[in-house]
This record gives sequence, C-alpha cells and structure tokens, in this order.
Amino acid sequence: MTTLEVGKKLAELCKEGKNEVALDTLYASDVVSVEAGGPPGQSPETQGLEAVLGKAKWWNDNHTVHSAEVDGPYPNGDQFICKFTYDITFKPENKRFTMQEMALYTVKNDKIVREVFFYSMGA
Amino acid sequence: MTTLEVGKKLAELCKEGKNEVALDTLYASDVVSVEAGGPPGQSPETQGLEAVLGKAKWWNDNHTVHSAEVDGPYPNGDQFICKFTYDITFKPENKRFTMQEMALYTVKNDKIVREVFFYSMGA
Repeated sequence: MTTLEVGKKLAELCKEGKNEVALDTLYASDVVSVEAGGPPGQSPETQGLEAVLGKAKWWNDNHTVHSAEVDGPYPNGDQFICKFTYDITFKPENKRFTMQEMALYTVKNDKIVREVFFYSMGA
Repeated sequence: MTTLEVGKKLAELCKEGKNEVALDTLYASDVVSVEAGGPPGQSPETQGLEAVLGKAKWWNDNHTVHSAEVDGPYPNGDQFICKFTYDITFKPENKRFTMQEMALYTVKNDKIVREVFFYSMGA
C-alpha cells in the first residue's frame, strides 16, 4: 500500500467510527502516539500498540460521539495529515462540545509507525 | 513569541494575502520549504529564504487569488499545522480551481525554519 492508500483506509474507518479496527489493522506494534499536551508530569508520548489501544479504550469509554468528520488524507512522501472534527459529549461531566484537531502520520512498511496530534490546549 | 503566536501571525497575514510580509518577518534566513512533489528531476526542497521568496514570486506572478481561507494554527510543541483553501486562477491556462493543502511548520528562535506542504498530486 502507498502512504496515500493507508491514509484513505484510516480516514474511511474513522468516518465509520471504526477507530479500533484502524488501530488493529493499520498500526505497527511499535507505534508511537504523541499528544499536544497532557496532565502535568505525564508524558505526551504513548509507546507501543497495546498502550495506544488502552488510550483509545479510555477515550471511547469516556466520550459519546455524535458525529465524526475526517478531512484528508493530504500526503507528502511517507507522511500524511488528516483533520478530525468530532461532535462529542465528555460523559463524566455530561459536557457536549466540538473538538477539532490535526493529525500527522508517518508510514513505514504499510503500517503507521507514528501519529502526532495538533490542537490548542485549554479554552 | 511562542510557536502558537508565530502560527497566529502567519495565518493572519496569509488571510490578508500578505504572504510576502509573512516570509520577510516570520521566516529564518536558512528556512527549508518542501513541496509534496514537483517536475521530474527537480527537488521538492527549496533551501534558504531567498530561494523561497523566488518560489513565492513565481506563484504570485502566475496565479490570481480570488479568495484565501486559513484554518489554524493547530500547535504541538515547536510545530504547528494550518490548512489553506485557495480559490485561484492559474493565469497561463486561465484555469480557475480550488486548491486545498495542509502545511506543517517548525519554529526555532521565533522563526519558521521548515515548512512542508501536504496535498494530493494530479487529478
């Protein structure tokens, strides 16, 4: 698969809410996932597919997704960018809001080996 | 300036069509600019502000910009991403079309030292 093909599959699965299928089929076992920020003292980096699946499980358990839009993929070499727009409710606070973020992916041997999320912290 | 502040200035200037002001004030002299592709045998990388200004001049001379939208900046550490949507006419062929691309910027000492453009080639 080309980088663009991996990106198209990822976008398709995320649009359908099948993020865990995307993780299982498109991600390398040693993937690194990088957030724009996190709680004080906690690393923004998550290493390895198992830990990334754990992060996804926490997210799914704590959010209701009302709609998901994916803009992309936009490729360059072995990387591509997608924009995600989620209409979600954060269950613990019953707070509904729109989340927008960019994600930069790096592909090696047909698998995503790195994902970096870009968004503003706070307000 | 923080990375986010550099990103906000860039977005503001590009929205106003002041791309050359952005290059003059926000870019490092040794900036590297990377396209997603280019003519066969030609490097997608442009090195140094003078050459990047030359690339911008070619672009401005050959396109009429009817409107420019900038979505972003979306920051992470010393990098940020913007999405650009241009309604343009390519003058040599009098062909009007919408161009969408993502751009990933790296900031060092308050200046943009690297920009990488992401978009699909062809069709």
